[in-house]
Amino acid sequence: MMNDTILIPAEKMKEIFFSVLLKYGFEKEKAESCAEIFVANSVDGVYSHSVNRFASFVKLVEKGFIIPNNEPEKVHGMNALEQWDGKLGPGVLNAVRATDRAIQIAKDNGLGCVALANTNHWMRGGYYGWQTAKNNFVFIGWTNTIANMPAWGAVDSRLGNNPLVIAVPYNGEAIVLDMATSQFSYGALELAKMKNADLPVHGGFNVKGELTKKASEILESKRVLPVGYWKGAGLSLLMDILSAILSGGRSTHEITQRKIEYGLSQVFIAIDLQHLKNYKGIETCINNIITDYKRSTPGEEKEIIFPGERVLKTRENNLKNGIPVMKKVWSEIETLL
Amino acid sequence: MMNDTILIPAEKMKEIFFSVLLKYGFEKEKAESCAEIFVANSVDGVYSHSVNRFASFVKLVEKGFIIPNNEPEKVHGMNALEQWDGKLGPGVLNAVRATDRAIQIAKDNGLGCVALANTNHWMRGGYYGWQTAKNNFVFIGWTNTIANMPAWGAVDSRLGNNPLVIAVPYNGEAIVLDMATSQFSYGALELAKMKNADLPVHGGFNVKGELTKKASEILESKRVLPVGYWKGAGLSLLMDILSAILSGGRSTHEITQRKIEYGLSQVFIAIDLQHLKNYKGIETCINNIITDYKRSTPGEEKEIIFPGERVLKTRENNLKNGIPVMKKVWSEIETLL
Repeated sequence: MMNDTILIPAEKMKEIFFSVLLKYGFEKEKAESCAEIFVANSVDGVYSHSVNRFASFVKLVEKGFIIPNNEPEKVHGMNALEQWDGKLGPGVLNAVRATDRAIQIAKDNGLGCVALANTNHWMRGGYYGWQTAKNNFVFIGWTNTIANMPAWGAVDSRLGNNPLVIAVPYNGEAIVLDMATSQFSYGALELAKMKNADLPVHGGFNVKGELTKKASEILESKRVLPVGYWKGAGLSLLMDILSAILSGGRSTHEITQRKIEYGLSQVFIAIDLQHLKNYKGIETCINNIITDYKRSTPGEEKEIIFPGERVLKTRENNLKNGIPVMKKVWSEIETLL
Repeated sequence: MMNDTILIPAEKMKEIFFSVLLKYGFEKEKAESCAEIFVANSVDGVYSHSVNRFASFVKLVEKGFIIPNNEPEKVHGMNALEQWDGKLGPGVLNAVRATDRAIQIAKDNGLGCVALANTNHWMRGGYYGWQTAKNNFVFIGWTNTIANMPAWGAVDSRLGNNPLVIAVPYNGEAIVLDMATSQFSYGALELAKMKNADLPVHGGFNVKGELTKKASEILESKRVLPVGYWKGAGLSLLMDILSAILSGGRSTHEITQRKIEYGLSQVFIAIDLQHLKNYKGIETCINNIITDYKRSTPGEEKEIIFPGERVLKTRENNLKNGIPVMKKVWSEIETLL
C-alpha cells in the first residue's frame, strides 16, 4: 500500500455513501442499494469504477443529469426481447433492474434480452455479470459510452470504448470477462502517467502517429488503441449500433453531441442454464475447461488466470483489512457529507 | 494480380465444386448449396475460408470426419433457445440451417438462439451474418475451434481463436464484423512468411518471448497473439465455455484431444428488428451512426471503412472479372474431379 492511501472498512464506506446519497435526494431504499453496489465494486478492487467515481457520480446527480429516484419502465415487449426506458435514473440501479428482468425473461423463454435506453453509466459492468452468474445464468451485456476512441486509422474520437461483459457460473462463484474495447481506460493512462511508468504494451498513438507505451503521449494525442487494432474498433462500432437500435436510445455520436456522458444505451442478455438438456453436465463441462486451461505452460506470467479470478482474493483481503482508497479521493467524498 | 494467380468465373467454379461434391457422395441439392456457399465466399474475397480450403474440406469428407448428407436435428427446445445436434454434417450447411432456425425463433420471440453441437468448420462466419442481416435481423454468432492460441502469458496453445460475428442490416446490404480472437490467422501468417513481409502490427511472440512482426518467428513459436493481449485470450475462453455449455457439445480441449478439427460447437443468435417499437427509425439510426463515423479525420489510413465495407467492391469485381485463385490451389481442386 502506498502512503497516499488509507484503508476504509467496507461498512464505514457504505454508511458514508448512504448518507451522501440521502443528502442528494435519494430515497432510503435507493440510497442503500446504490451505496451497496459502489462498495461491492470497491471491495472487489475495481476502484476506478466505484469509490474513485463516487464524487463525480454525485456531481452528475447534483447537476440533474442523473435523476436519483426515477425507475426504469418497460416500453415494449416481445416475449424474449424487451425495450425499457431508463428515465435517466442512476445507471447502477437501472442496470441491476434490467439484469433482474433479463433473468426473469430467461426463466420463461430460455434466454431473455432487455435493451435499456436513456440510462446512465453502469460503473463496473462486471457487477451484473456476477449478479447473473451467481443465479446460475449466463450473462452477456454491453453499454455504449461517449466518444473516446478513434476509428481505425483516424485521429479524432468517434467511437466509445463500449465495455463488453460475459459471465458464467463457476464453482459457486463466477468467471467474468469485463473488457472495454480500448486497450487501456483513460483512468489507467492517467495512473501510468502519474507513476511515470511505461504501459505493459502499446496503448495508443502519439501525435506523430506512432504506437507508444507512454501514457503521457497518448493523453496528449487522445488516440487510444482499440483492442486488436482494427478489430476492436469494428467491435465497438457494432456494439454501439446494437445498443442504439435495440433500445431505441442514443448512439455514441448523439451522446457526444451533448458533451456530458449521460443518457446511454445498454443491452442485457441472460441465458437460463437449468433449462438446457445437459444441465447436469454444465458444472463439469466448465470445470474441465478450466482444468485444461490451468495446465498451460507459463511463459512470462507465473500464473495463468481466468477473467475475474483475482477478484475473490481481493474481495477477501479488502473485507478483512479495509478498502485501500487514495487520500485525495476520500477527502473529496467527505466534503460531500 | 500476381502471375501465380488465375481468374476463375464464379459460374465455372460452382460447376466444378458441384461436380466434386457429387463425386464425394453429396446428394444433389446439398452439393449445390455447399458449392454455392464456397463460391459466394470466394466471390466476396475471403479466399482463405473458401476456395483455398475446398480441397481440405473434401479430404475431411473422404476421411469420414464430415458426413456429407447428415442433417442437423433439434435435440431440445425452450421457446427462444434451442439445442441442435449437427451430426457431423458439413459445417456450412449446418450453419445455414441453424441461422435460418434462429431467424424463425426470433420471428416468434423477438430473439432466437440455436446452440449447435457436433458440427464442423463453418468456413467464413461472416456468411451467416450477411444471411441474417439481409433478412433484416441482427446476427450474433461464434464458433469454437481446435486449440491454436496460448492463454495469456502461456507458451502452449489451449485456446481456440474462436471467431465472433456480429451483423446488422445497412443500406440493403450489411455491416458485418467477422473477427477471430487471434490478431492474425495462421493463413495470414503463412502468406506473410511466403512474401517475406513484416506483419502490419505485432502478431505474436518469438521463441524468446518477445513480441514480433515476423510471421516466420511466430510460426516457429506457435505463440500467436490474442486481440488485445489478455483481453482477447479471456474473450476466447468465455466463447468456448458458452459454445460448449449451451450446445452440450465439445469444448476446445476436447476437440484438441481428437487431433483433427471436427465436431465443433457453435452459437447462432438472431434478433428481429421488425418487432421493435422504434422500427421505422432503425434504418435512420444506423445511417446516422455511419455518417458520423465517416466524418472521422483520417490519420494513416486514407479511408475510414466499416467492417464488411470492402466486400461489395470485391464482390462486384470478382463477378465481373472472375475470382483470383492461386494456380496451385486450383490445380489441387482439379485433381479432385
